[in-house]
Amino acid sequence: MDNGVLDSLITENDTKILFLILDGLGGLAMEGHSGTELQVARTPNFDALASRSSCGLLTPIAPGITPGSGPGHFALFGFDPIKTNVGRGVQEAAGIGFPLEDKDVAARFNFATADKDGKIIDRRAGRISTEENQRICEKLRQNIKLDPEIKIFIETVREHRGVLVLRAERLSGEIKDTDPQQIGLFPLPPEPICPEAVKTAELLKQFITQAQDILADEEKANILLLRGFAKNTGFSSMEERFGLEAVAIALYPMYKGIAHLLGMDVIPDLADINEQIESLKDNFEEYDFFFFHVKHTDSRGEDGNFADKVKVIEEVDKLLPDILALHFDVVVVTGDHSTPAKMAGHSWHELPVLISADTCRIDPVAEFDEISCIQGALGHLYTKDLMTLTLAHAKRLKKFGA
Amino acid sequence: MDNGVLDSLITENDTKILFLILDGLGGLAMEGHSGTELQVARTPNFDALASRSSCGLLTPIAPGITPGSGPGHFALFGFDPIKTNVGRGVQEAAGIGFPLEDKDVAARFNFATADKDGKIIDRRAGRISTEENQRICEKLRQNIKLDPEIKIFIETVREHRGVLVLRAERLSGEIKDTDPQQIGLFPLPPEPICPEAVKTAELLKQFITQAQDILADEEKANILLLRGFAKNTGFSSMEERFGLEAVAIALYPMYKGIAHLLGMDVIPDLADINEQIESLKDNFEEYDFFFFHVKHTDSRGEDGNFADKVKVIEEVDKLLPDILALHFDVVVVTGDHSTPAKMAGHSWHELPVLISADTCRIDPVAEFDEISCIQGALGHLYTKDLMTLTLAHAKRLKKFGA
Repeated sequence: MDNGVLDSLITENDTKILFLILDGLGGLAMEGHSGTELQVARTPNFDALASRSSCGLLTPIAPGITPGSGPGHFALFGFDPIKTNVGRGVQEAAGIGFPLEDKDVAARFNFATADKDGKIIDRRAGRISTEENQRICEKLRQNIKLDPEIKIFIETVREHRGVLVLRAERLSGEIKDTDPQQIGLFPLPPEPICPEAVKTAELLKQFITQAQDILADEEKANILLLRGFAKNTGFSSMEERFGLEAVAIALYPMYKGIAHLLGMDVIPDLADINEQIESLKDNFEEYDFFFFHVKHTDSRGEDGNFADKVKVIEEVDKLLPDILALHFDVVVVTGDHSTPAKMAGHSWHELPVLISADTCRIDPVAEFDEISCIQGALGHLYTKDLMTLTLAHAKRLKKFGA
Repeated sequence: MDNGVLDSLITENDTKILFLILDGLGGLAMEGHSGTELQVARTPNFDALASRSSCGLLTPIAPGITPGSGPGHFALFGFDPIKTNVGRGVQEAAGIGFPLEDKDVAARFNFATADKDGKIIDRRAGRISTEENQRICEKLRQNIKLDPEIKIFIETVREHRGVLVLRAERLSGEIKDTDPQQIGLFPLPPEPICPEAVKTAELLKQFITQAQDILADEEKANILLLRGFAKNTGFSSMEERFGLEAVAIALYPMYKGIAHLLGMDVIPDLADINEQIESLKDNFEEYDFFFFHVKHTDSRGEDGNFADKVKVIEEVDKLLPDILALHFDVVVVTGDHSTPAKMAGHSWHELPVLISADTCRIDPVAEFDEISCIQGALGHLYTKDLMTLTLAHAKRLKKFGA
């Protein structure tokens, strides 16, 4: 839906919307199991909810396209994920709450291990501890010497992961990754993709050369691999776009970061899903839109662990009655992309989705899984259209045309 | 389908097409009823037709977007309804057969009642009679004194509704509604949306001020509320676009107006659905395309009257054999938008659709309703694509490419 048209249809209401997002929810049948993770999981509560919902299947980006977590979530929040693909660096910076300025260029980095020739032998530096990461970042900060006009920020994320931010006028994010994504190769130079990025690339070369010297005496973390160079192009908030006071109830930096970029409030310092549910209850009166993110469905899928992904789904199912007891006007359950244990990674497969609201058309779907949802009233939708449909059920959209 | 491409594929034929449009057809289950209006209605004839048709579900505009009658119908006639959103004023003017010129600006108006402070207390002036409306329009015509360069037309539609047309050079339809759509408020000024509309807005202010004085002594209709200011941007006819000699068999001005804008012949002075069917028979030889519009499904939905909407559907079902006895080559049955009695208004929900033709692929759908059609061969379509599909079944489209 064209944004200008949608803008003109937004209307205020005090209805409350829950997006319960199980990361990597969609799956595949796998040898030794009688169906997909969702089919195998015992989910009486999701099934009961599906029975009184409209169900369907979501394509996150386009048929056959496997989404990263960023595009998968941007689509959920009503963006065209192809046009608004935000750089990983910006996502990661937002994820640790780094206050990016418009002129900044951010990149995600990994500490990695190179052999004496400089070839990569471990892209994650043996997954060094977060404390070790912090020590090495401080060492870099103390010793890097660039043009004093350039401000540089080297920030720990967790384990081997960090964020680099350069702050200066006329920087560009149009820089190629230095991470070749494979061991046995040399790190790549930070090549400019367009003429405007030549200066930024030069600066990065100086930084990388100095960093390599500074890290030379480290046993594991002796090089840096950079990727996802990007500037923060700026996004309108959920409030500006949809008139929604939105809050993110998530455990992981990446998802908090995306929420922060979209102007949602982010509940800090939640330790586990039980604390997430308590936070949902505590904040129920304060917000219109609740982005409740469950990470472990994806993590167990990424591990290739079918049985444990099933367990995570069953755990969430047990907690569902507590969530529904809050009586949201619209409840949406889905994921950002599929992560079938069989593939041990993200995939392009469609995601089951349900919308529960007083205005939903009840279909015959009585089990919440990828196969049952084929019979659903929603049919096959693009994820980017889910938000508009949700706003309609929340009675937050006016009629188009007379 | 891109118009340029479609244009090149149109070919002549003498096949006959019926669009049987039940306004506001789609519904929702509602407490005390065992399904949607269509599920509850006894429709042996629609069901038999569905059994030998391809069925599916239509999205009129986009997921979650509730269409007005204008966009809903423009989509049926193969337009992208977002790009071709025609102003209400133009639709209404066309609906009463007013010969709009290209430079004209038209607006829909309501006579309304204001209290002594000027606040609106009844947006419909107690639904004054059409005769009363005619008397007051004449009084306005006699007494309004604008610049003689400006021609002004004040036309009765029915009850409290009318059409205002301004005719002069360099007018603009980019004017905000003066109807705040709520009682207890003052009418809004006719604000220009762009600089080109400043002159038109000034003119409208003069008109409104004079009209208020002229109407001051009226008991009920003491103010005018204006909305849907628009110029007629001009549409190619059904003949030009598709090579179809088209006729509209409709009872209500709005739908006749849309048909007129699209160059269809419009059968005048039909009193009820029986006269519509007689007219269909009488004109069968004269035309290729028949737009047969049934209004009361929408009206009863708008009233929130589930049982009466069911009755209207059952009445049309009883008349269906008479219609089908004419042996159209392609019969399409659907609506322009949903109007669930449960919501007492238009909604965004999909519409059931069937296409019956010698070339249709028969699917397992044996009942014509929103839930059964999920299993249909057509799947989920955008309404704007329905016309192309219809032309194909009517063998009026050539092959694309060699």
